[in-house]
Amino acid sequence: MEIITSRRNPMAVHIKKLGTSSSYRREHGEFLCDGDTLLGDAVAAGAAITVVLTSALEPFNLPADTQVFYAEQEIIDSLSPLTSAQDTLFICKMPQVPGISDFLARLGSGDGHFSVMLDSLQDPSNVGAIIRTANALGVSCVILAGHCADPYNPKAVRASMGAIFRQDVRRAGYDELAELRQGGMRFVAAATGADCIDIRGADLRGAVIAIGNEGSGLSREVLELCEMKVTIPLAFGSESLNAAVAAAIIMWEARRHGG
Amino acid sequence: MEIITSRRNPMAVHIKKLGTSSSYRREHGEFLCDGDTLLGDAVAAGAAITVVLTSALEPFNLPADTQVFYAEQEIIDSLSPLTSAQDTLFICKMPQVPGISDFLARLGSGDGHFSVMLDSLQDPSNVGAIIRTANALGVSCVILAGHCADPYNPKAVRASMGAIFRQDVRRAGYDELAELRQGGMRFVAAATGADCIDIRGADLRGAVIAIGNEGSGLSREVLELCEMKVTIPLAFGSESLNAAVAAAIIMWEARRHGG
Repeated sequence: MEIITSRRNPMAVHIKKLGTSSSYRREHGEFLCDGDTLLGDAVAAGAAITVVLTSALEPFNLPADTQVFYAEQEIIDSLSPLTSAQDTLFICKMPQVPGISDFLARLGSGDGHFSVMLDSLQDPSNVGAIIRTANALGVSCVILAGHCADPYNPKAVRASMGAIFRQDVRRAGYDELAELRQGGMRFVAAATGADCIDIRGADLRGAVIAIGNEGSGLSREVLELCEMKVTIPLAFGSESLNAAVAAAIIMWEARRHGG
Repeated sequence: MEIITSRRNPMAVHIKKLGTSSSYRREHGEFLCDGDTLLGDAVAAGAAITVVLTSALEPFNLPADTQVFYAEQEIIDSLSPLTSAQDTLFICKMPQVPGISDFLARLGSGDGHFSVMLDSLQDPSNVGAIIRTANALGVSCVILAGHCADPYNPKAVRASMGAIFRQDVRRAGYDELAELRQGGMRFVAAATGADCIDIRGADLRGAVIAIGNEGSGLSREVLELCEMKVTIPLAFGSESLNAAVAAAIIMWEARRHGG
């Protein structure tokens, strides 16, 4: 086990950058995770763990080719991207996800499935929370469109509670989504307004349900793809639901009839 | 308008303590809120705003008896209990909520209502998020039991997005809940395990649905009150839902048949 004694150690610098920069993460195809619980989830899910940095002395049952580093907690605190650092940080390789058209081919035309698409969601914690709920409710795919927060942002990873290692998550451009639509995929917009159908009466089987940005809702590009708009009826005088809560109710409703 | 130039100013000290101590809040019957948006919600809901402290120079349309203080943003940052301080802090009086038995009498035996009870939920952000969702979905009352996080904790207030000013929220001891049960109130436990009914098939009309602590679930005291246990069926291999998400799905399902 190597010991890291300085924040200028090359591995420490690499860890710091993975925690703070989404372009650095993409460039290296790796992301940073924190905590023993998440490490357990990653091992259980067979995630490609490359590096573990810990201040704990107890050995963890890791894949044989994992590089393990030890550092004082003070160094780990300074490298952690989260305010409440845990005693372990680790690096995983991002899964190689084939393009979105492969996804369509794989799903076929079965009715049991449905997916959600997040259109420029801003808050990484919301993205992570939605990935967690999607995984728990058996959603086929979480599609990230527009300028959506990075699902490998450490806040998203933490909020996903390990679901990031298990859930099919893919990025798609608006042009790819338009191709999917042409290929027969149904798109449904989650929205508010008088022109929306009550979600309880909507047929969501086999659809991609689009959820918009916390402030500005769905983009014009996505709205144009959608064959209908559905809404969650709210009590009089109430403003809105949190994006992760609205997404949860929508996914639950879509799955409700599935089993 | 008075100007606060020091953190040792008595009002500054009062604000700081309201933001950090739940016993101080209870003792004074006041709580601290942050931000112009929330201030607008408080005014709209007719909340009893007593003090506004702001670094903004634009006047806000406030009730006539509100004390307004000005301070530099640096002082507001140091008094704010939240990491991302806004330019306004304000104090509201806690509403005088009659005891839980009054609530029962008011509800009568109508079927259209239902309530949720949070049993020792630990995370104030979860409590606030659930209050927000409950308000949006028309839940009669949010009952806080056991050692539940303070709904007037600044994190809870922020997560409630103004719903704290509109939603009926009451604390109740386990003995009061037992009285409610004797008075004919139905209690239903949200839980996991083989002895639970799928929530889609459960009759939740008129019930109090009990939601447990994030880690340890429902207390023995609450489980003994419940006539049945319901569960949200999850996908195979999935661990769990976030408490606020689980509560949202449960409230949605209870309301689903209501209108």
